[in-house]
Amino acid sequence: MPGGKRYDFMNLPPRRTPDLTVSEPIVSSTTFPPVPRREVIDLTSSSIRDIANAGMGRADTAAFWFGESDMPTPDFIVESAIASLQRGETKYLHNLGTASLREAIAAYSSRLHGVDLPASRIAVTASGVSALMVATQMVVSPRDKVVVVTPIWPNIAEMPLLVGAQVVRHPLTVENGRWQLDMDALLKRLTPDIRMVVVNSPNNPTGWTITRAEQERLLAHCRRYGIWILSDDVYERLCFRPGEAVAPSMLRLAEPEDRLMVVNSFSKTWRMTGWRIGWLTMPEELMADLPKVIEYNTSCVPGFVQRGAEMAVSDPRGEASVAALHKELVASRAMLLDGLNAIGGIEVPDADGAMYAFLRIEGRADSLATAKALVAEVGLGLAPGSAFGSEAEGWLRWCYAAEKSKIADGLERLGRFLG
Amino acid sequence: MPGGKRYDFMNLPPRRTPDLTVSEPIVSSTTFPPVPRREVIDLTSSSIRDIANAGMGRADTAAFWFGESDMPTPDFIVESAIASLQRGETKYLHNLGTASLREAIAAYSSRLHGVDLPASRIAVTASGVSALMVATQMVVSPRDKVVVVTPIWPNIAEMPLLVGAQVVRHPLTVENGRWQLDMDALLKRLTPDIRMVVVNSPNNPTGWTITRAEQERLLAHCRRYGIWILSDDVYERLCFRPGEAVAPSMLRLAEPEDRLMVVNSFSKTWRMTGWRIGWLTMPEELMADLPKVIEYNTSCVPGFVQRGAEMAVSDPRGEASVAALHKELVASRAMLLDGLNAIGGIEVPDADGAMYAFLRIEGRADSLATAKALVAEVGLGLAPGSAFGSEAEGWLRWCYAAEKSKIADGLERLGRFLG
Repeated sequence: MPGGKRYDFMNLPPRRTPDLTVSEPIVSSTTFPPVPRREVIDLTSSSIRDIANAGMGRADTAAFWFGESDMPTPDFIVESAIASLQRGETKYLHNLGTASLREAIAAYSSRLHGVDLPASRIAVTASGVSALMVATQMVVSPRDKVVVVTPIWPNIAEMPLLVGAQVVRHPLTVENGRWQLDMDALLKRLTPDIRMVVVNSPNNPTGWTITRAEQERLLAHCRRYGIWILSDDVYERLCFRPGEAVAPSMLRLAEPEDRLMVVNSFSKTWRMTGWRIGWLTMPEELMADLPKVIEYNTSCVPGFVQRGAEMAVSDPRGEASVAALHKELVASRAMLLDGLNAIGGIEVPDADGAMYAFLRIEGRADSLATAKALVAEVGLGLAPGSAFGSEAEGWLRWCYAAEKSKIADGLERLGRFLG
Repeated sequence: MPGGKRYDFMNLPPRRTPDLTVSEPIVSSTTFPPVPRREVIDLTSSSIRDIANAGMGRADTAAFWFGESDMPTPDFIVESAIASLQRGETKYLHNLGTASLREAIAAYSSRLHGVDLPASRIAVTASGVSALMVATQMVVSPRDKVVVVTPIWPNIAEMPLLVGAQVVRHPLTVENGRWQLDMDALLKRLTPDIRMVVVNSPNNPTGWTITRAEQERLLAHCRRYGIWILSDDVYERLCFRPGEAVAPSMLRLAEPEDRLMVVNSFSKTWRMTGWRIGWLTMPEELMADLPKVIEYNTSCVPGFVQRGAEMAVSDPRGEASVAALHKELVASRAMLLDGLNAIGGIEVPDADGAMYAFLRIEGRADSLATAKALVAEVGLGLAPGSAFGSEAEGWLRWCYAAEKSKIADGLERLGRFLG
């Protein structure tokens, strides 16, 4: 599907001045082929999908390409949605979400970060990606400049392009075997003509996780120049720093009137990827206009989906399931990293969060070719680094939200591929 | 919520040139208040919500303001979603929807319109409004001009503004007691510099329904000048012309390579408003790039929601429920129109579709004031015409997808208000 026909806009016939007094013959519609606008054609499509499509034909593939847990959504969440459907909760709801879910999210987030967030600053969205789109539409105009810390989930860097803005990429670097953010260099890029900076921490794909001190510097700088911060915190519960099971959040540092928008999602924390529900934490000042933008994007989230989400953040079983997920990921992460380090010629820089190993194989610079070869030769499905930006070329992403036996199988396949 | 604080952009302090070599004091964040961009502030918010919010405080309100049936979603659809949840269908799915739902929609739509639509031209979206947004993003660039036939559901005319385009409104007129489209005048507006024309037929709020002959003229003209047609067909099953239970669709006339995008939704036809699922029928040429735009808006629709929708379009009980809905609406429509005509001083022009009476009360030019007075004095909840554009000022929209006893009660309240 990606990489379809491309059109030569320069050679389309010029639009003619109409003479409406004359009955002209109707020209064939091939004069005006039904092509998308240029900005859409130029958007990068996900080469993760390319790889997955190639591998899905093979029965014997160990797939680690998607950012999705192998485990199903916990039963108590599913049961809450079923009960809601049985009660007939199938009508239009408030643009910002139900009052009870907004209260439940505010209480959860306040508890998690030791702050006092009111429900009036919370909006429920039809997925984390919808939250990113809505937030972008709220503050970014055509021709604005947006700085994105990369490599990053492709959606985040492409979305500003869709609204007509320019994107400046600021790459993370590997230093002393760890993913690092060069904050001095980032702040130099954040000049007053920049509208917004986007940070995803813990980061997909590298696992890089911002520190409290880095957040303080970034916030102080953006305050000074009025630059919006869009913080994508969807992996905040997947932090593996000793004694720090929750990644630091800007919500703890910021004042309610700071230019800060925080995106979150139920997908990773409660294994609800297919439910399509997330939330935004916004300054109060945006809340009067936010319902319009949500109205024009998706209007609202199904009531039965909101009921499942409410159960996830408010029922004690929600925290128990997050703790269980964290424990499983600690184990599968250790197993994968040990296994990768035991195979020679593989570089896996340290990082503290998310659910991915981001690795590089000696002598293999073309990540898409490597990913394709891995699928074809040993049935190992990894995501090519190039999907996350040109600065990630040469790297491969391995999602370790999988059972240990599956990870062991994947490691064996990789060993076979290299040996 | 609407009509919140407004900001004087002209009086914001100028952005300063940063001197990064000096440690400047951090200015208070009130220097840069966290306000939305101007285009978002300028979007019209729905005054239907204003009225509804005013009325929701009153226990004794007969509400006809929303475009939503009083009846629940049919059980067999709900049961299909529940079974899907029980099977654990809670993972990421294809951007364009499941293969089985796309096939089911293609078969349904082909059957309905006597055409041969392949599933490859169908995309499942997270609501009809999301379909409109995605379609708009596919072809409309900032500064493009879009013509919209009005009055119309506010979302449709505001959405192009959100992507930075200009909107030209082309109003329907009342002639000989019927809502009419002046096609000569519309075609004069559709000059080659127009990127897209949007038609919603049957129309919300007037009920106006385009004829086959009008569609032919419009399509021929748009073909000649390469103008995109965005057709919102969500009320197509609610047509009350003698012998014409389905409104004419452009899908029947158009070639696959025409610049035509058709939006549909499960909301009205199968009483699934709160499920948030719709679909797009697109030219094949757009299908390679469409997944990217859906990916950046909502990514996919929940599997259990898609299962409910699949049941609606493919199970025989789906058609039976549509027939029952149609029959109920014929009866409630007749009852409402008779009742309104029996009260003196009310104008209700004829129209053939949708599920609204669009009416005007003699001597009452301010629709918002009238709607507020109706709620306050007799607890009758109607939507103000001004919500649908300035050309609909003075009108009121009454949704008749309600039980007969409720409509009788509403008519009694209106009589009391006027008498």
